[in-house]
Amino acid sequence: MGRWEPNARGRLEEAALELYSERGFEQTTVAQIAERAGLTERTYFRHFADKREVLFGFPGQLHAGITEAVASAPADASALGAVEAALTAMGAVLQERREKARKRQAVIDENPELQERELIKMATMAALLTETLRARGIADSAAALAAETGIAVFKVAFERWIQGPDRLDLPTMIREALEELQSLAADYGTR
Amino acid sequence: MGRWEPNARGRLEEAALELYSERGFEQTTVAQIAERAGLTERTYFRHFADKREVLFGFPGQLHAGITEAVASAPADASALGAVEAALTAMGAVLQERREKARKRQAVIDENPELQERELIKMATMAALLTETLRARGIADSAAALAAETGIAVFKVAFERWIQGPDRLDLPTMIREALEELQSLAADYGTR
Repeated sequence: MGRWEPNARGRLEEAALELYSERGFEQTTVAQIAERAGLTERTYFRHFADKREVLFGFPGQLHAGITEAVASAPADASALGAVEAALTAMGAVLQERREKARKRQAVIDENPELQERELIKMATMAALLTETLRARGIADSAAALAAETGIAVFKVAFERWIQGPDRLDLPTMIREALEELQSLAADYGTR
Repeated sequence: MGRWEPNARGRLEEAALELYSERGFEQTTVAQIAERAGLTERTYFRHFADKREVLFGFPGQLHAGITEAVASAPADASALGAVEAALTAMGAVLQERREKARKRQAVIDENPELQERELIKMATMAALLTETLRARGIADSAAALAAETGIAVFKVAFERWIQGPDRLDLPTMIREALEELQSLAADYGTR
């Protein structure tokens, strides 16, 4: 936040990810993270409430990204079309940070407390997406259904991407998963 | 568990729900729950690990219910058809306990820690449903997608039901939400 600490937040995130990967989440202290980043503990706590939050990024940025993507979807986009715009925008950000995303996921997979925090993040995203779709004029019930389903599709696509080979592209995989859902839904009707 | 304490588990659940509704979750102790149920704290801890778990039911029963419902879906049911069987079976159980479900939801809505626990329950159900669909011979990727989407649909239908008038029937609402999803998915393709 001070100009004498350029990109303190980013440096702390990077240092935390390194240490969590090397030593494990439990075994790392905030003091060690601050030291690795060349900053003080006080600076750490100006940016993050605890050891966990450093893995959960910039809520403000995420909010802005989703809102902007949904707003810039074509006026005649369907509800799931607008959801696609939001999800692929998030996907593009993660695609840029693929190696970090992988390391982060490996840390989360080792720790139930972090898995819970990730579930909360996903639920928050679904609520935010619902709200954004409503602001677009989509009816309340359709907005919640499209948003919750969209986040479910995102989870599945993300898991395929994070576990798959390097050449995979997350935004493409999100679109493919939405198309698969479309085909599952079409089959549902033919029971 | 002892035959001298008939239905101890159910009595503890009932007592906890009453006290949480009357005084709030935070303000209630395990000693008070045990007393209200006419049982000892020791008996409480034989059934539940902590104050939270008494609200999260019988994991074994849920497991058996989902597995059985998916297994008994017609052989030619689609992936989402098998998901429907599981979700409506869960829905029928909740429909039977409507008043309890409402009280429980009101307690959960007041407490972020309980909301997190509910998210974990939902994630566990999605994983279980995925596994059950795979056991049915549905391909891995389709199974995860159908299960995660199904749980998303369930959440939306449940919320409509719990907030709506008494005459609503949860299994019917789950089927309607699946049909709405089908229609959203069909519109997605026509962008």
